[in-house]
Amino acid sequence: MKKADEKPLAVVLVSGGMDSATALGISASEGNRIALIHFDYGQRNRIRERTAFDALAEHFNAERTLIVPMDFLKIIGGSALTDENIPVPEEMPAKGEIPATYVPFRNGIMLAVAAAWAEVIGASKIFTGFVEEDSSGYPDCREVFVNAMEKAINLGRRPEGKVEIIAPLLHKTKAEIVSIGTKLKIPYELTWSCYLGGEYHCGKCPACRLRKKAFIEARIKDPTIYEPQ
Amino acid sequence: MKKADEKPLAVVLVSGGMDSATALGISASEGNRIALIHFDYGQRNRIRERTAFDALAEHFNAERTLIVPMDFLKIIGGSALTDENIPVPEEMPAKGEIPATYVPFRNGIMLAVAAAWAEVIGASKIFTGFVEEDSSGYPDCREVFVNAMEKAINLGRRPEGKVEIIAPLLHKTKAEIVSIGTKLKIPYELTWSCYLGGEYHCGKCPACRLRKKAFIEARIKDPTIYEPQ
Repeated sequence: MKKADEKPLAVVLVSGGMDSATALGISASEGNRIALIHFDYGQRNRIRERTAFDALAEHFNAERTLIVPMDFLKIIGGSALTDENIPVPEEMPAKGEIPATYVPFRNGIMLAVAAAWAEVIGASKIFTGFVEEDSSGYPDCREVFVNAMEKAINLGRRPEGKVEIIAPLLHKTKAEIVSIGTKLKIPYELTWSCYLGGEYHCGKCPACRLRKKAFIEARIKDPTIYEPQ
Repeated sequence: MKKADEKPLAVVLVSGGMDSATALGISASEGNRIALIHFDYGQRNRIRERTAFDALAEHFNAERTLIVPMDFLKIIGGSALTDENIPVPEEMPAKGEIPATYVPFRNGIMLAVAAAWAEVIGASKIFTGFVEEDSSGYPDCREVFVNAMEKAINLGRRPEGKVEIIAPLLHKTKAEIVSIGTKLKIPYELTWSCYLGGEYHCGKCPACRLRKKAFIEARIKDPTIYEPQ
């Protein structure tokens, strides 16, 4: 039973990248209690993402954490992130093109699992760092999708209590995200973006390019160590 | 690439129970090519369900099958089906009450995973055996939920191609389902309903009660072997 003076509990989807770390910082700054969920789906950079997740969970003093193994996404395949036979492109995708790194309906699955957990632990909010503009070009990062998914989740769960999906970065540019996060003292040095998951950020894959661009455009010092070119 | 004369490919969610077996039979009878998906989430009757799934896949000559391990549902808990500390009730739940066997947002997660697979293999239909009336009382078996989820899935996937969620039994009674399935020659003797997953159907849990009731009301001989009382 929730006490009247108890702060709301928020599930935050945290990949370990900059966007989800910023969404986490926003959620914490609004006074929510924090439950962090992370997905391990055999992605190339899984060890790096997991390390970043653990560091962020400790930094933000998470009340609960849940690691969700989703190896089946590797079996389903269809993405350069989960299929070793599909190379991660170095170029940014053309405008309007779905990139090779898109994992079919990954965000839909993640939101569905987060919704199940939220229902069991009594969380009334789900925060995500999805970015629609200036980012990946994935169809499951769009506001229309997030809104439709929120509706479906509330129709499919126990009728007592609703859950709100909060995606505070949907319409932010990468530079705006870094600016917001820097004000909130997000420890970006703990985060991981690179799709390849090597010792350092490769600096060349689409995720690294977006990361670099973010700091440059925000005129904020980039704490990332990139692979020497 | 789909050839013009090629039959449509349908993903069918098959638990191994009577309803999903009937939905599978309907899908096959409509001339779809069949891809079967099954979820192993540490449910009490997982071995029995899996055996039923394998037998149905063989019987219906499935073109593809996918077993999805979802052990995280056991970690998330909140249900008598996945948490050994919550007993499976023998009584049917009161009207309008959510039963203890309800697994939070399970069907939402299953549809999301099925949607990812459908997108990768090029299936244009997802069949489910969800039953809204005369059945479990789970909120994620309702038509409003299925429609909302279909909308979310089509907004979150690649824009080329749509997927249709077909739930042909939503408004059927259990007796109607068995009548339809018997006409379609569904091998109900291969299916498994009992929540407990013992050697025989227990005959007492809510799933067994619904199974028995179906055959009695349809006036069709029940091929099930029940535990001697």
